[in-house]
Amino acid sequence: MTRRPVELPKAYRLLNHGPTVLVSAAHGGRCNVMAAAWNMPLDFSPPKVAVVLDKATFTRGLVEASGHFVLSVPCRAQVELVTAIGNRSGHEVDKLATLDGLRFEQVPGADAPLIGGCVAWLACRLLPEPHVQQAYDLFLGEVTAAWADERVHSNGRWHFEGHDGLRTLHHVAGGHYLVAGDAIGS
Amino acid sequence: MTRRPVELPKAYRLLNHGPTVLVSAAHGGRCNVMAAAWNMPLDFSPPKVAVVLDKATFTRGLVEASGHFVLSVPCRAQVELVTAIGNRSGHEVDKLATLDGLRFEQVPGADAPLIGGCVAWLACRLLPEPHVQQAYDLFLGEVTAAWADERVHSNGRWHFEGHDGLRTLHHVAGGHYLVAGDAIGS
Repeated sequence: MTRRPVELPKAYRLLNHGPTVLVSAAHGGRCNVMAAAWNMPLDFSPPKVAVVLDKATFTRGLVEASGHFVLSVPCRAQVELVTAIGNRSGHEVDKLATLDGLRFEQVPGADAPLIGGCVAWLACRLLPEPHVQQAYDLFLGEVTAAWADERVHSNGRWHFEGHDGLRTLHHVAGGHYLVAGDAIGS
Repeated sequence: MTRRPVELPKAYRLLNHGPTVLVSAAHGGRCNVMAAAWNMPLDFSPPKVAVVLDKATFTRGLVEASGHFVLSVPCRAQVELVTAIGNRSGHEVDKLATLDGLRFEQVPGADAPLIGGCVAWLACRLLPEPHVQQAYDLFLGEVTAAWADERVHSNGRWHFEGHDGLRTLHHVAGGHYLVAGDAIGS
């Protein structure tokens, strides 16, 4: 197991560089996951996040009903899985039953499953803001726990050298992505 | 001049991969620019964006007063400039007068200056949402015009090959960035 807790005041650094995430939620015996390029940190401490959940998604209903969601940060080795997750709806298929490689992991401290094989995870409590949820599909959450794969993230920094398959994915459109590249600066 | 208009329904693709942006605004004879890693697309058509503007920033006041802002997407060749912009406040210094390499470009269709040397630009009209502005420092805007550097973006795709200095910057923390890397997928 290479998943290690990330201290909450540094949890924003898991999303700060703009990766596409997977959003998972569970309620009433149903569980689902969707892809979301439209996400960002919203505060440092307590850490908050923002994510766009379209009205057509099945996951949105699970988030609204349960008041919880998890953001998992997928990696290059998962690119086909991420595109498949984004191209199907939980209204129509049970993704866990139909998508090879999709694993839901139940972890203490998270009220929704983490997605196996990802490189970072943020467990979030919904901060209800009905107006922006309805008007803009915009959902806000407080991060209550965070973890990262210690092979590529530690001490508040990503270090992907030697782990190209674990580099984060940054969706452009239509299943076309850029992966995280060189580290520069201080 | 390599700046070309981007059709509005594809403007989200300039931000979809999560680059750090520069936010500029002008009002009453003052103009300023700040750095913002916390930004994301919010809708396709009409395109909308979300960006976090801390209460301590000088630019926030210019956005509130003018109702307009521009997001410019900087590149690897500008990394020192971006960090310098992020480390200073318009409350204390005139960034245009003090930062080497900072150029404000006035362009028809934008009510705030575009930042020269960047690789994409989105002119935005503030969508006033006083509650989330005050509670979360969260600002929403409708994109009214967009442009990209045709050397690295055309037909809704980034193509950085052969232009490493023009790759987008993705801030992690403290002046440390990842640059956009390989293109993968469809």
